Amino acid sequence: MVKLAALVVTTSAIAFAAEPNLMPLPAKYSLGSGRLAIDQNFHASTVGQCGPILVRALDRFAHRLSMQTGIPGQGGPLTSATLEVQCDHASKPIQALGEDESYTLEVDSKQARLNAPNTLGALRGLETFLQLVQQDDEGFAVPVISIQDQPRFPWRGLLLDVCRHWMPIEVVKRTLDGMAAVKMNVFHWHLADDQGFRVESKRFPKLQGMGSDGHYFTQAQVREVIEYARDRGIRVVPEFDIPGHSTSWLVGYPELGTDPGPYQIERHWGIFDPTLDPSKEAVYQFLEKFVGEMAPLFDDQYFHIGGDEVNGKQWTASEHVQAFMKRESLKDIHQFHRYFNRRLQAIVQKHGKRMEGWDEILEPDLPKSIVIQSWRGQKSLNEAVQQGYSGLLSGGYYLDLMQSTEAHYAVDPVDESLGSLTDEQKTRILGGEACMWVEFATHENVDGRIWPRAAAIAERLWSPQSVRNVYSMYTRLDAISRHLETSAGLTHRSAYGAMLQRLAGDDRVEPLRVLADVVEPVKEYTRSSGNPDYTQFTPLNRLVDTVRPESDAGRNLRYSIAAKDWAAVRRTLVLWRDNEALLRPTIERRSLLKEIAPLSTNLSQVAAVGLAALDRIEGRTPEAPTLDASQILRNAAKPVAELLLMAVPGVNALVTISIGGKH
Amino acid sequence: MVKLAALVVTTSAIAFAAEPNLMPLPAKYSLGSGRLAIDQNFHASTVGQCGPILVRALDRFAHRLSMQTGIPGQGGPLTSATLEVQCDHASKPIQALGEDESYTLEVDSKQARLNAPNTLGALRGLETFLQLVQQDDEGFAVPVISIQDQPRFPWRGLLLDVCRHWMPIEVVKRTLDGMAAVKMNVFHWHLADDQGFRVESKRFPKLQGMGSDGHYFTQAQVREVIEYARDRGIRVVPEFDIPGHSTSWLVGYPELGTDPGPYQIERHWGIFDPTLDPSKEAVYQFLEKFVGEMAPLFDDQYFHIGGDEVNGKQWTASEHVQAFMKRESLKDIHQFHRYFNRRLQAIVQKHGKRMEGWDEILEPDLPKSIVIQSWRGQKSLNEAVQQGYSGLLSGGYYLDLMQSTEAHYAVDPVDESLGSLTDEQKTRILGGEACMWVEFATHENVDGRIWPRAAAIAERLWSPQSVRNVYSMYTRLDAISRHLETSAGLTHRSAYGAMLQRLAGDDRVEPLRVLADVVEPVKEYTRSSGNPDYTQFTPLNRLVDTVRPESDAGRNLRYSIAAKDWAAVRRTLVLWRDNEALLRPTIERRSLLKEIAPLSTNLSQVAAVGLAALDRIEGRTPEAPTLDASQILRNAAKPVAELLLMAVPGVNALVTISIGGKH
Repeated sequence: MVKLAALVVTTSAIAFAAEPNLMPLPAKYSLGSGRLAIDQNFHASTVGQCGPILVRALDRFAHRLSMQTGIPGQGGPLTSATLEVQCDHASKPIQALGEDESYTLEVDSKQARLNAPNTLGALRGLETFLQLVQQDDEGFAVPVISIQDQPRFPWRGLLLDVCRHWMPIEVVKRTLDGMAAVKMNVFHWHLADDQGFRVESKRFPKLQGMGSDGHYFTQAQVREVIEYARDRGIRVVPEFDIPGHSTSWLVGYPELGTDPGPYQIERHWGIFDPTLDPSKEAVYQFLEKFVGEMAPLFDDQYFHIGGDEVNGKQWTASEHVQAFMKRESLKDIHQFHRYFNRRLQAIVQKHGKRMEGWDEILEPDLPKSIVIQSWRGQKSLNEAVQQGYSGLLSGGYYLDLMQSTEAHYAVDPVDESLGSLTDEQKTRILGGEACMWVEFATHENVDGRIWPRAAAIAERLWSPQSVRNVYSMYTRLDAISRHLETSAGLTHRSAYGAMLQRLAGDDRVEPLRVLADVVEPVKEYTRSSGNPDYTQFTPLNRLVDTVRPESDAGRNLRYSIAAKDWAAVRRTLVLWRDNEALLRPTIERRSLLKEIAPLSTNLSQVAAVGLAALDRIEGRTPEAPTLDASQILRNAAKPVAELLLMAVPGVNALVTISIGGKH
Repeated sequence: MVKLAALVVTTSAIAFAAEPNLMPLPAKYSLGSGRLAIDQNFHASTVGQCGPILVRALDRFAHRLSMQTGIPGQGGPLTSATLEVQCDHASKPIQALGEDESYTLEVDSKQARLNAPNTLGALRGLETFLQLVQQDDEGFAVPVISIQDQPRFPWRGLLLDVCRHWMPIEVVKRTLDGMAAVKMNVFHWHLADDQGFRVESKRFPKLQGMGSDGHYFTQAQVREVIEYARDRGIRVVPEFDIPGHSTSWLVGYPELGTDPGPYQIERHWGIFDPTLDPSKEAVYQFLEKFVGEMAPLFDDQYFHIGGDEVNGKQWTASEHVQAFMKRESLKDIHQFHRYFNRRLQAIVQKHGKRMEGWDEILEPDLPKSIVIQSWRGQKSLNEAVQQGYSGLLSGGYYLDLMQSTEAHYAVDPVDESLGSLTDEQKTRILGGEACMWVEFATHENVDGRIWPRAAAIAERLWSPQSVRNVYSMYTRLDAISRHLETSAGLTHRSAYGAMLQRLAGDDRVEPLRVLADVVEPVKEYTRSSGNPDYTQFTPLNRLVDTVRPESDAGRNLRYSIAAKDWAAVRRTLVLWRDNEALLRPTIERRSLLKEIAPLSTNLSQVAAVGLAALDRIEGRTPEAPTLDASQILRNAAKPVAELLLMAVPGVNALVTISIGGKH
């Protein structure tokens, strides 16, 4: 469980220079004075040879600007270009790792100029421009600014699991829109796992036919997604996770497994026994044809084969596997898995791809062209680059673990506290990927699981390492969260409201929102490890499925305390204390809310404790009778209905201050 | 301007028996005790021959139920059917006016049975079932109920203008979803007007090519919309408004006009001079081919030719028209227009259609098969049916005039206060149509202009005439408004929030929402007549474009006063009084809000007047200094920024009570 006490901030942390509402922050920028008006006459045009991708990007730009401002994108007299976009040449037909993404953006009070070596840089610059649009007291405008920007890392990805719960193409597309808005450039599409095989194979139609419940992407849809991504400067890397995590393959093709089967689509969460069988020659024949079909469909240079979390139980128990291992002098399960990886790598390479896999595939025998994606963390990543491989970091960037944005933001792919790296080794740290595993997410709440937190990870991977002020990050995150919905079409804010309203039924939703705003889901793997009854069919319609991974209200209280803004602290605590009476009738009427009754009581009591402490701090006689503060706070720190009450850390701090302690 | 004083209610009006959250209310129903649980095992199945439309409807039903409950639509063991849908036969391949739409729905605590003579009734019954789903203290459920239902009128329509502002196909589709949810059955698609020609003609491609700014529906999209509508039990009647309202036709084909042109797409609102020229034989040749192309594309039996608002100025001024009229013994412009209608009717009839038109086409010479749509009101409608025509009412149902739901709800197509009608004449009153003209609506705010008010008009046209309790209607409307968003996919609630946030920029939106909740746009034609500078390109991003046509907060205050719920009245007034201080900084920072500064001040002052009155009523010494209440209220009743402050009627009533008067 997350340590709540560690979340308390000090005053010094919240001082920072004003920065533009950009995320990621550019490599270099300088704010001038004045503004460029965005009115009905505003329009953008191109100079140079950027190709059709930029033409389409400018169409989207006009539409999004219209959504941001409410000003129709047509009708004004087209005088001179107001935003002139110039690029030297088009980007590569198939976007490649390491292509130049730099751009400069110069905005003065008359016009703006965006220059980039190629289309990719122009796309990035257009997103910067849209983020800069604000309504001030004269109208909509972009501030006068000069920006020279390029990314720190060439691989800035987001993994979306579409297996544990099905994610329709609309979710994929808006996820890509969100990624583009924060300059992420790799969509890692986790397409096959125990709980679902999500791509149409024409050669092996039982993969999706028996392994997907009918929820899979057709090859036409795959091409549509790749084109959609490419239009936004995003590479698409597919992952087919083998030899473990492969139950869904075996439903239609049990002969590929070690045990004879039959197999059924897995409905629970965890690590399961079914695996492809590396001792069977038929498996490699199958994979040869399968990779041969998928390699041209997914035209990126990289091909992710998973390779994680093989428990080897079926292998250990199998006579024919044991005989095979003996024959091939493979001493243990680990060597047996290595054998599989070497043969798989040869197949992947034969079809023109560079293989990518999780930490577990790391071994000295594979060619250095492969890429290791480290879910285990920087230590594991450092080992990979020290052995000569390229790698990227995902440990610390798992969005499904419900950690604070601050926690993700603090994780850097280059961590030399674990031992120094040579410059050449550092170069082979390609970047990182945020990961969204969806055991506890559906199409309804997935946006709120990814956004806005992924924007801070995007900043970590794009902006200079020195950009680390947390308070600045949160201030800008708040603006980017709105921008992601208004301009990029995500639903993380509106879906929160809709899901809350469903919980409240026909009752007023506001009191429920007050409570929901100050709770967070339990962290890490608490939900899945604490409750083995969760399956793919469990309704995810409870408050824990609705609330945001991180409570702004809880953090704002801590910040207000740090800033000694006692009026704001009091306002918040009174709201919380009085909320119980307003919320209680709704809780009693709605079955889905019954479980949160103690949480609502805790909020009221914790707020009362906080108010008594505040009274002492302000030298007033406490209104409330003497409360057993420490017992209330201890009790309220325990999870209720898989939810944490984020009023506790702030009130803990307040109590400490009120008794003369330092917090 | 609407009379604010008339909006005050009396206590007696708000007493009514509890009714299920249905809109429209069924013809007959009887609530039992107990509930049918909607859990993971719930599913629906069909018996009988309902055809593929019902199969698709059950797919949508499952998805919508899942959206309403958050319970996945798959995975439970399929034991016995929980909702059994039975229909005797499929509805007609092309849905016809007057087809049976009746159904019965029997829900007991074990299962539900929906029976209907045909598919249409089954569709209606499924909507009823979805509206009945509620979360109670045990889970999701439908109450035990017995329903025998059928519509009062066979024509229950909604007109959507897609000309004044372009409405993309997504808007059309979700409008159809909303219509289906409230059992409306005619989508009147206003496709051509001065400001845009919105359908692809292959024979006359300059119609859309030069008359639409590129915003038109392809013929494939038209077919898609018709199929989408048919799946939902909705007929699609196209309107091509001629001979007036036809500027957009003349841009590409000026030779059809009386004046030689050239013509440009009209950008302003109003009644304009350009007309097709009834004296030109080429016009009829053109219309013969045009109707010949459109008649099979739109396969409904009815074809709407508009016919309204011809000012005749070009005709009067034209020598060749005057000569023609003399030759044909047409005494005036009116007879000239009649001549056109007779020839047009012959063309329409030749292509297998029944002609429909607005009041203006009414004349004794046309065959009785035509349908008159009355925008002028019941008097005009009664004249039509007395002359032997069929007709439907739209006067009183114009959603763009920003009237209260109550006002629309009070309008009945059959109004015998204007003179009695025979039963046969009454039968020829086919029903009515709500109309949404979009001079002041875009794809962003159009849902909020139509919904939820159109649901009350749908009830007027479906439910027995005796269903008229306004307080019951508002209570159910509140529930149906949420249902329309959760279950039918409309955006009237989420778009309101998003547009408010855009106005507030990065500031907290809540204080703006408090004010927005208690204002309404000015009524009737005040906006267009008051400001001739409005055009198709004017940004519709102000508060007047954002707020709801009817303020729930304003009405709730009046109801609280009528119920003498002084605690609720005080809570509301305190919130309003104190809002000014919270909202003022945002108003000063945001140019779009500057115009509402006086409105915010007025709200605060009116609330203070109300609080002083309430203090007197409750026998307290007023906190506030003596206010010139009448001057404040008079001042606050004036529109500001095209907005009306709906706090005024309630506070007026409160002041009257406080000085011992009756309100």
